[in-house]
Amino acid sequence: MTKDLQAEIVAVGTELLLGQIANTNAQWLSQQLANQGVNVYRHTTVGDNLQRVQEAFKQAHERSDIVIVTGGLGPTEDDLTREAFQQLSHIPLVQHRPSMDKIQAYFEKQQAVMTPNNPKQARVFEGATVWLNPVGMAPGMKLTYDNCTWIFLPGVPREMKALVREYMIPALQQLLGKKEMIKSIVLKFTGIGESKLEHELQDIIHEQTNPTIAPLAQEEGIVIRLTAKSDTLQQADQLLEATKAKIFSRVGNYAYGEDHETLEGKVVGLLTEQEHTLATAESLTGGAFSEKISTVSGASSVLQGGIVSYTNRVKEHVLGVPKKVLETKGAVSKECAEEMAMQVANKLSSSIGIAFTGVAGPMEMEGKQVGTVYIAIYNPTGVSLVEKFLFQGDRNSIRRRTVLKGLELLYRTLK
Amino acid sequence: MTKDLQAEIVAVGTELLLGQIANTNAQWLSQQLANQGVNVYRHTTVGDNLQRVQEAFKQAHERSDIVIVTGGLGPTEDDLTREAFQQLSHIPLVQHRPSMDKIQAYFEKQQAVMTPNNPKQARVFEGATVWLNPVGMAPGMKLTYDNCTWIFLPGVPREMKALVREYMIPALQQLLGKKEMIKSIVLKFTGIGESKLEHELQDIIHEQTNPTIAPLAQEEGIVIRLTAKSDTLQQADQLLEATKAKIFSRVGNYAYGEDHETLEGKVVGLLTEQEHTLATAESLTGGAFSEKISTVSGASSVLQGGIVSYTNRVKEHVLGVPKKVLETKGAVSKECAEEMAMQVANKLSSSIGIAFTGVAGPMEMEGKQVGTVYIAIYNPTGVSLVEKFLFQGDRNSIRRRTVLKGLELLYRTLK
Repeated sequence: MTKDLQAEIVAVGTELLLGQIANTNAQWLSQQLANQGVNVYRHTTVGDNLQRVQEAFKQAHERSDIVIVTGGLGPTEDDLTREAFQQLSHIPLVQHRPSMDKIQAYFEKQQAVMTPNNPKQARVFEGATVWLNPVGMAPGMKLTYDNCTWIFLPGVPREMKALVREYMIPALQQLLGKKEMIKSIVLKFTGIGESKLEHELQDIIHEQTNPTIAPLAQEEGIVIRLTAKSDTLQQADQLLEATKAKIFSRVGNYAYGEDHETLEGKVVGLLTEQEHTLATAESLTGGAFSEKISTVSGASSVLQGGIVSYTNRVKEHVLGVPKKVLETKGAVSKECAEEMAMQVANKLSSSIGIAFTGVAGPMEMEGKQVGTVYIAIYNPTGVSLVEKFLFQGDRNSIRRRTVLKGLELLYRTLK
Repeated sequence: MTKDLQAEIVAVGTELLLGQIANTNAQWLSQQLANQGVNVYRHTTVGDNLQRVQEAFKQAHERSDIVIVTGGLGPTEDDLTREAFQQLSHIPLVQHRPSMDKIQAYFEKQQAVMTPNNPKQARVFEGATVWLNPVGMAPGMKLTYDNCTWIFLPGVPREMKALVREYMIPALQQLLGKKEMIKSIVLKFTGIGESKLEHELQDIIHEQTNPTIAPLAQEEGIVIRLTAKSDTLQQADQLLEATKAKIFSRVGNYAYGEDHETLEGKVVGLLTEQEHTLATAESLTGGAFSEKISTVSGASSVLQGGIVSYTNRVKEHVLGVPKKVLETKGAVSKECAEEMAMQVANKLSSSIGIAFTGVAGPMEMEGKQVGTVYIAIYNPTGVSLVEKFLFQGDRNSIRRRTVLKGLELLYRTLK
């Protein structure tokens, strides 16, 4: 294995500090660097202010082996990346003929007049490797200064990505000598909390250094990120597979997918495989569940549709929940959920029906407290499942949790 | 005016450095801080490493008046924000009873066993102002240490945003109140594009320095943020009102609300005022429209419910669209939309019915290209509106645009 190189990314641009755009450049660059086995230890964003940019550069220089700068290479007065690095390094700036020609050609082609500040984009550091920008004006630069590799990239994502793919990655691989591969997979779980999952895996997580194991709580559930480093992709894959097997031997029954797979996607997949069709009956969720299912491309082959029965009248007259159930048990009841699931499956002639009824709040209903939710699943053999839940949070988190729980239950019954 | 407060944002989380997620928290927080007139000078992201987190905290502390930390407050071993700040400040951590009760109550309600690491989330710094997390476990914290205000927020965006809206912004205003009053209002518009709106207001936007006028394109439409600075809140209000009047004299007919008012909220409000009830018939949107309406607290008084007719069979047999219409005109047609709106209003006995049918993609349907959408509105006097649209973008943006357009049309017909 080659020595670990410490890299960091510095983004220059006041628009980032004003929140006008998100720093997606840092995310994308970090993915590229991870794939090359380069560890990124920090992201920094500073505004278009000479002193603050210079300070950020100075700190990065002291910390890291590789500093990648995005932005501040444009033609305007507040593009200060060149000036700031020059103050730090005292390396002179010279005109890059090919870039200058490119800029002139552009203005001729556009029959536009070049403003005095345009040539600024063709200024590069003496001795730097210059990367001509295939989709824009400002070239990229790579240079070594005081044992630190500095890479300068334009902030426009399209230009930055083009230069990274064409020049930076090959340059990094050369820098790394023998290229080390990093591969990362994400294991996704449902029906288990972050702390319980981490508790189950505590010893493995501690023993394990390659791949590293990082549990992470996300909106849709818990994920575990495994990151393996090795000389070959094949070895990295083997390391990942071995650890994955260890983890699954403990909590495999909670796992539903990897990487970009979604729970709703898995549910639609299982429904399709098993040639089921689905209909939904929703009260408190107001259509959120069928909406979630229909986000999956290809859902139309399984999702018949649904009935949003927000009022009891719709529950009774459109869905067909017996008046007696509504009167004696109430709309927020096990019995109502069961009827809703069964009736919607019959009405829409689907093989499976799922129903949601409960109290999203803000007020309690039928003397049932806010967060009380019943979910029922009906299949051709009858109501296969009905469960009561008590969810926390405000109106919309209760609704969100209800939808996620519905996906989890449907997934479990299909699996 | 006293000196501006310097703020910076530190995000803690290795998943950010691996590029698995973008630091959208920093973007959103920066917007909020800008609205309050707080200048953000830096964003920093560090991984889940005690020494590096502590180093980042130390540097932030030396530079800034306000440091906002997101992430690293969870229950697991790699949540190190508390430990890192304790090493810096030596402020002891104590158990926060209300948070602990919340965690215990949660596990009792879920009938789940609390694992040893859960109580960690209830540990707070002695003397800190603690902000109970309305949608999650880990509370937020605000404390002053060595003349610097430190704010700790969970990394899960939904939890972070809830705490910022409910607690952090008022706390900041109090902090700023001792210096200068900054008041910001957001004017919301629908049915007008950003460029047209900017064009209409160009001269006003340029003349105006206090309040500043910032048009912004957002998911739900165009908003204009007015930010006034003054010695008293009353003066700020007067400045805002005067500018608002100027703006409304030009584009007031496109305005629908302010600040946290939503278009769906306005629609529900108008329906309630006019004693209307609403039923929805959705095809391509799969329930997204009724879901949107039902997010409004109090929607139950107007929303009867809806029918998601994802297949033609459901359109015909459940909704009651005549077979002839489906066969001769197709499901993606003006006529089908009209029938859907009328039928759903009749079936659910609501005074207003709104219907959506179209092609979300990825494949075209009935020879109609992806993005073709028909929206129809039925009211007691008959079908009052049916329009055809051609939306751009992928499956989900087409669905999102359809829902927003539906809200806009319904708002216009009610206003």
